[in-house]
Amino acid sequence: MTLFGVVDAAYAKGTGTVSSKTQLKNSGYNSSRIGFRGTEDLGGGLKASFWLEAGVNNDDGTASASNTNNQAVTAASPGTQGLTFNRRSTVSVESSFGEVRLGRDYTPQFWTETAYDPFGTNGVGTNIAFNKGGVTGVRASNSMGYLSPSFSGVKVWAQAYMGENASTNAAKAGDGTAFRVSYDNGPLSVALASSSTKTAVLNVKNKTSNIGGSYDLGVAKLFAQTNKTKVDGAKDIKGGLFGATAPVGAGTVRAAMSSTAQGDVKSNQFALGYVYSLSKRTDLYATYASVKNKGGAAVALNGSVTEANGKSTGYDFGVKHSF
Amino acid sequence: MTLFGVVDAAYAKGTGTVSSKTQLKNSGYNSSRIGFRGTEDLGGGLKASFWLEAGVNNDDGTASASNTNNQAVTAASPGTQGLTFNRRSTVSVESSFGEVRLGRDYTPQFWTETAYDPFGTNGVGTNIAFNKGGVTGVRASNSMGYLSPSFSGVKVWAQAYMGENASTNAAKAGDGTAFRVSYDNGPLSVALASSSTKTAVLNVKNKTSNIGGSYDLGVAKLFAQTNKTKVDGAKDIKGGLFGATAPVGAGTVRAAMSSTAQGDVKSNQFALGYVYSLSKRTDLYATYASVKNKGGAAVALNGSVTEANGKSTGYDFGVKHSF
Amino acid sequence: MTLFGVVDAAYAKGTGTVSSKTQLKNSGYNSSRIGFRGTEDLGGGLKASFWLEAGVNNDDGTASASNTNNQAVTAASPGTQGLTFNRRSTVSVESSFGEVRLGRDYTPQFWTETAYDPFGTNGVGTNIAFNKGGVTGVRASNSMGYLSPSFSGVKVWAQAYMGENASTNAAKAGDGTAFRVSYDNGPLSVALASSSTKTAVLNVKNKTSNIGGSYDLGVAKLFAQTNKTKVDGAKDIKGGLFGATAPVGAGTVRAAMSSTAQGDVKSNQFALGYVYSLSKRTDLYATYASVKNKGGAAVALNGSVTEANGKSTGYDFGVKHSF
Repeated sequence: MTLFGVVDAAYAKGTGTVSSKTQLKNSGYNSSRIGFRGTEDLGGGLKASFWLEAGVNNDDGTASASNTNNQAVTAASPGTQGLTFNRRSTVSVESSFGEVRLGRDYTPQFWTETAYDPFGTNGVGTNIAFNKGGVTGVRASNSMGYLSPSFSGVKVWAQAYMGENASTNAAKAGDGTAFRVSYDNGPLSVALASSSTKTAVLNVKNKTSNIGGSYDLGVAKLFAQTNKTKVDGAKDIKGGLFGATAPVGAGTVRAAMSSTAQGDVKSNQFALGYVYSLSKRTDLYATYASVKNKGGAAVALNGSVTEANGKSTGYDFGVKHSF
Repeated sequence: MTLFGVVDAAYAKGTGTVSSKTQLKNSGYNSSRIGFRGTEDLGGGLKASFWLEAGVNNDDGTASASNTNNQAVTAASPGTQGLTFNRRSTVSVESSFGEVRLGRDYTPQFWTETAYDPFGTNGVGTNIAFNKGGVTGVRASNSMGYLSPSFSGVKVWAQAYMGENASTNAAKAGDGTAFRVSYDNGPLSVALASSSTKTAVLNVKNKTSNIGGSYDLGVAKLFAQTNKTKVDGAKDIKGGLFGATAPVGAGTVRAAMSSTAQGDVKSNQFALGYVYSLSKRTDLYATYASVKNKGGAAVALNGSVTEANGKSTGYDFGVKHSF
Repeated sequence: MTLFGVVDAAYAKGTGTVSSKTQLKNSGYNSSRIGFRGTEDLGGGLKASFWLEAGVNNDDGTASASNTNNQAVTAASPGTQGLTFNRRSTVSVESSFGEVRLGRDYTPQFWTETAYDPFGTNGVGTNIAFNKGGVTGVRASNSMGYLSPSFSGVKVWAQAYMGENASTNAAKAGDGTAFRVSYDNGPLSVALASSSTKTAVLNVKNKTSNIGGSYDLGVAKLFAQTNKTKVDGAKDIKGGLFGATAPVGAGTVRAAMSSTAQGDVKSNQFALGYVYSLSKRTDLYATYASVKNKGGAAVALNGSVTEANGKSTGYDFGVKHSF
């Protein structure tokens, strides 16, 4: 049994044309968490394992809600949210044929978004097109997943999850299916993924698909991804990112340009940062990002507010410690 | 200090005459949990110990509420319930004269219900007469218990718990007393238990009493129990169960017939299941159950809904892993 | 990584002129908790560390809320409050120049209140003037602290914390600053501390300042402290305490006289107790306290209610076990 976690805190500022905000935030480089996991060897190549992982808002001691049915949640009163295993709570049986995983887990298309983002979807530099997928954009509850072994670098991940509605409910909100096909070979990594979740409106689904990849040149690692979220009755939300990381001194420079667009409503972001490693477990980091809005968009960074078509900038400066 | 737990997930379906439901559930074989416990030897036969144990809904990452005063609770918003030590949170001092235990603990009559049920009050096969005892049907907060040592197999457990009302409150809802006397001798185990809890209505108590036993024949273990819950102003709720477990192959067959009746309102259940042990810590299991209702009863299994006097069936198919 | 905690339960009674109350309480001698902490040596005198600590109400299994912005919180529904790292959730970087600590932490003036109280601000004997400082009276979220090393016994602790309001919010409720200067030399310990927090009313601060000290004579240890809380538009709340502890037999006698006054509204308390140590980790304790009110005050102990200018008494009798 392994007890593990991350405690990551950052001084963060966001500036918009309407208001700015200064905060102590968490998870600027890695997501703060505490978890318990373990694997039992059952013999004959068979293994059983469990994984219980809770998000921690270490700036204020609170935690994060989960979701019982992959549908909208009413938040708890501020300050009262207790620990849930919202990040992952699964039990698995594995063999040479792959892993069957049951419980609350990541949705496959999220892995493509995070794996091919130099900022790993943490902090102010996160891909501006990240997580347009609604309630199941990152994780789903009541999921049953199959994760294949690697066939010459190719892996398949198939997942179904349940909204647990009565059979008399026609819309079946929260039911969904998802997959990811990935290929890893030395410096190259690419993946194609999609997830589709029924909403409370009959026959309306929220479907996010993406393609991404990275290539490690040694002096630098390049990243690219493109995302598309379809919501019936509205224009598709499209997003893309180009980025790179490069080892510099005792740390890593990170940079990314990302964009999101729903029709003419567009936002573009540039982000630049540096991570200085004090050890394998502890890093100092700083990230700066700048957003431009068009077509009425008003995306603003780090809790600031900007007017339509306004600009916003933000930065994080923090420390991440894992255990 | 011991860190322990269970992660149990099951694909579960319930079918009724009105609606059916399919879910990923937890705790189909053993109750999912995470806990911390430990014992300190104080010398001279004296020991101090603690036990903090939280329920975990590993299908979705949420947890379970506790209860501060043994009175009705308003549930948290779905998805937001964080970890509480709802299953047990006690500190004890023990000597050769027995154990004094303070905190939130099981109520004694629950142990009889679970110990003499082939399905251990988990999953779709659970005794249909289980837990008619209201808020303190399984556990009580603010309890003070005395657990005797074994006198030739006889043990006594006495408990008092408090609703923590002001002295000017006449009803004293949540105050209660309980006991259990058990006898264990080789293959035989029997117990008599009762708990009585004051309600918010003056002089109205909720009192559950039961008698149960098991006998291990080797080729099979037989179980029987009878429960009675008295609520003033209404007819008693009576329940009974006959069941058996038998080792078959690498696992155990489980079967039970149980019934509950409040006057003419009656429900009968038959349940059959198999547990296949992959190791001491990991099991696969499947259970099927069927319920018949009479006199206006409408009990339905696994989240399905059935009309008055309708039938319902359900099954669980899952994996339990302990650590 | 260290997993640590305290489970402390007490049978407690309070008696007032209006009503009395009997409860099973927690934290009568030490605050019940469960926590995770660790330190990593980074070389060159540099260290990184984390501390995640949750309050536990082990009488009923619930936990305690935290606070996201150092402003008033609406409590969760009774029985539903899950574990938060409300007691402390910090990440630190330390060197020979001192420690920089980020997250939710104690406010400095609290340490003076608890360090120089024979009852350590736990249980019925707690200084009656304790914690008049509002939301940040004990802890603050979003804090950035600097803790100096010891210069010949002198230490400085400086802290700033944020309410995380938008820049357009003029009052900046929850923003605050605090410090503590302490001197420890053999039997002598003294400290001066203050914290000041902005409220939701423009230019109105809640400011608590205190001075305290203790001197260990060997046969007894003496304690004294004085506190003052300024709230604009109201009279200052003043408090003071004199107390002592003395080793007697296998345990410690504790006694204190404390008082609080806001203008003519005054309360005085006398408290006497004994702690009997079964081991370094386990103690039995009993405390008795008595309060007198004047000028319309109606302070009552252990959940009892007393009329204006009435008297109240209370006692705790319990066991504390740490792990």
